[in-house]
Amino acid sequence: MHKFKVIHTIKEVRQCIKEWRKEGLSIGLVTTMGYLHEGHKSLIDRASEENDKVVVSVFVNPIQFGANEDLNTYPRYIERDAKICEEARANLVFNPESKEMYFEDAATYVNVEGLTTGLCGAKRPGHFRGVCTVVSKLFNIVTPDKAYFGEKDAQQLAVIKRMVKDLNFNIEIVGCPIVREKDGLAKSSRNTYLSVREREEALCLNKSLKKAKEILTKGETYSDKIRKTIEEEITKVPSAKIDYIEIVDSLSLSPVEKIEKSVLIAIAVYIGKTRLIDNFTFEKEK
Amino acid sequence: MHKFKVIHTIKEVRQCIKEWRKEGLSIGLVTTMGYLHEGHKSLIDRASEENDKVVVSVFVNPIQFGANEDLNTYPRYIERDAKICEEARANLVFNPESKEMYFEDAATYVNVEGLTTGLCGAKRPGHFRGVCTVVSKLFNIVTPDKAYFGEKDAQQLAVIKRMVKDLNFNIEIVGCPIVREKDGLAKSSRNTYLSVREREEALCLNKSLKKAKEILTKGETYSDKIRKTIEEEITKVPSAKIDYIEIVDSLSLSPVEKIEKSVLIAIAVYIGKTRLIDNFTFEKEK
Repeated sequence: MHKFKVIHTIKEVRQCIKEWRKEGLSIGLVTTMGYLHEGHKSLIDRASEENDKVVVSVFVNPIQFGANEDLNTYPRYIERDAKICEEARANLVFNPESKEMYFEDAATYVNVEGLTTGLCGAKRPGHFRGVCTVVSKLFNIVTPDKAYFGEKDAQQLAVIKRMVKDLNFNIEIVGCPIVREKDGLAKSSRNTYLSVREREEALCLNKSLKKAKEILTKGETYSDKIRKTIEEEITKVPSAKIDYIEIVDSLSLSPVEKIEKSVLIAIAVYIGKTRLIDNFTFEKEK
Repeated sequence: MHKFKVIHTIKEVRQCIKEWRKEGLSIGLVTTMGYLHEGHKSLIDRASEENDKVVVSVFVNPIQFGANEDLNTYPRYIERDAKICEEARANLVFNPESKEMYFEDAATYVNVEGLTTGLCGAKRPGHFRGVCTVVSKLFNIVTPDKAYFGEKDAQQLAVIKRMVKDLNFNIEIVGCPIVREKDGLAKSSRNTYLSVREREEALCLNKSLKKAKEILTKGETYSDKIRKTIEEEITKVPSAKIDYIEIVDSLSLSPVEKIEKSVLIAIAVYIGKTRLIDNFTFEKEK
């Protein structure tokens, strides 16, 4: 029988993990901020395939939100999240209160420098420091063998991989492909903010990336050209406001001018007040 | 038979730990920068009493030294260190090269804010960030049940305890009393820098703290008075130069004016060119 429960304290998680470890079972972790969609589900599915036990954390992490960001309005729906987790054969949902995760005098932060200054980090100072800190905490609480992150948050994935390497976490980080709506929009909890019209307009993100991929495949090597192609496509939509269009090295996340090896093409666009991101990685054939 | 070895790679450590864990053995860790003395030995002894297996790391951690500090001249003597560890019944000495611990593109740092800005942190920016980062790495490599730190480095002990609490490391931090020479000088690898005359003069640190303890025990509650008493004693020695004399809350390390609960009285003094530290914790009786 598939056992499943939702728990709220670190102590309970440690107890479960300890029992599983005694039985020699492998453990997969999916860290989320809840309001789960098909993207998260694909991570949980993958974790279930590859591990004996799967833990999903559902925690809207306050320290990764900036002062003017959507911490208070970020969508929450733990009952539905729990149902999705159970159906995807997770074994444990860890859904702590904020005070369970952060003491009043908490003063410790984990930060990855360099990789976090560009892309989303440029406009969201402290965001990745908040992500790295909470992920470190969850790694120490759950001590998984593998942890699953979506390629949609490409910078986050690169940052977490670097953190794990640098701090010697004995955990394999597994990146999972972006899950899209039928019309191509990347799944995101923030899509729920979009009006019907904005939902339509949001397609420009994926469309612009498709065009970029086309000219890359045809042999284009100049980042400027790629950037212009994406820009042209997005500016067709009047309500779209480009935050960034970046072509960077996949590992260092440093901007590249000429495409010679593996690059990440990442964009962030405001559709109305909602900031959406999308990306793809392109491997230049030698 | 007591098994002992010196190893140099993270991979070998993990292998050992894995085997020990399979047998259900408990593991204690003593992190050091080598050039071991009685102080370190007391930590290893304590770890041997309380754990099935003991790992001692010997690594002069470059990222905790400032640009003008003594990284290159810091004393090293791994053969003697290994002997001391074996005699103290440690099972493993982990003595990595710098490149084994830090990749060229390493970019991740662990920092405890607040607690690290005063005392030794004031004059050594980045020092505790370097300590927390390397200790996090060693925790993740060795995954000990308990880790042992000397009370001599009182700020370091407070910072590590906070880090472990904040980042949910599942490790008990054990603080161990200062070990002193017969004449009262706190043991330190840096004592080796002292000339015969300086060695004599260095006694002023412990002497001044003894005087402070005397007046505290008699009921003195004003930090200013304590500070003056210490200062008077130290300035009797012409070659002594006070770096700081601090009376702070034991947990938050914030300065206190009036002594009402547990305080740390900590001093740092240059004897010639050698910077020495000493301290004691005073619990006010209610």
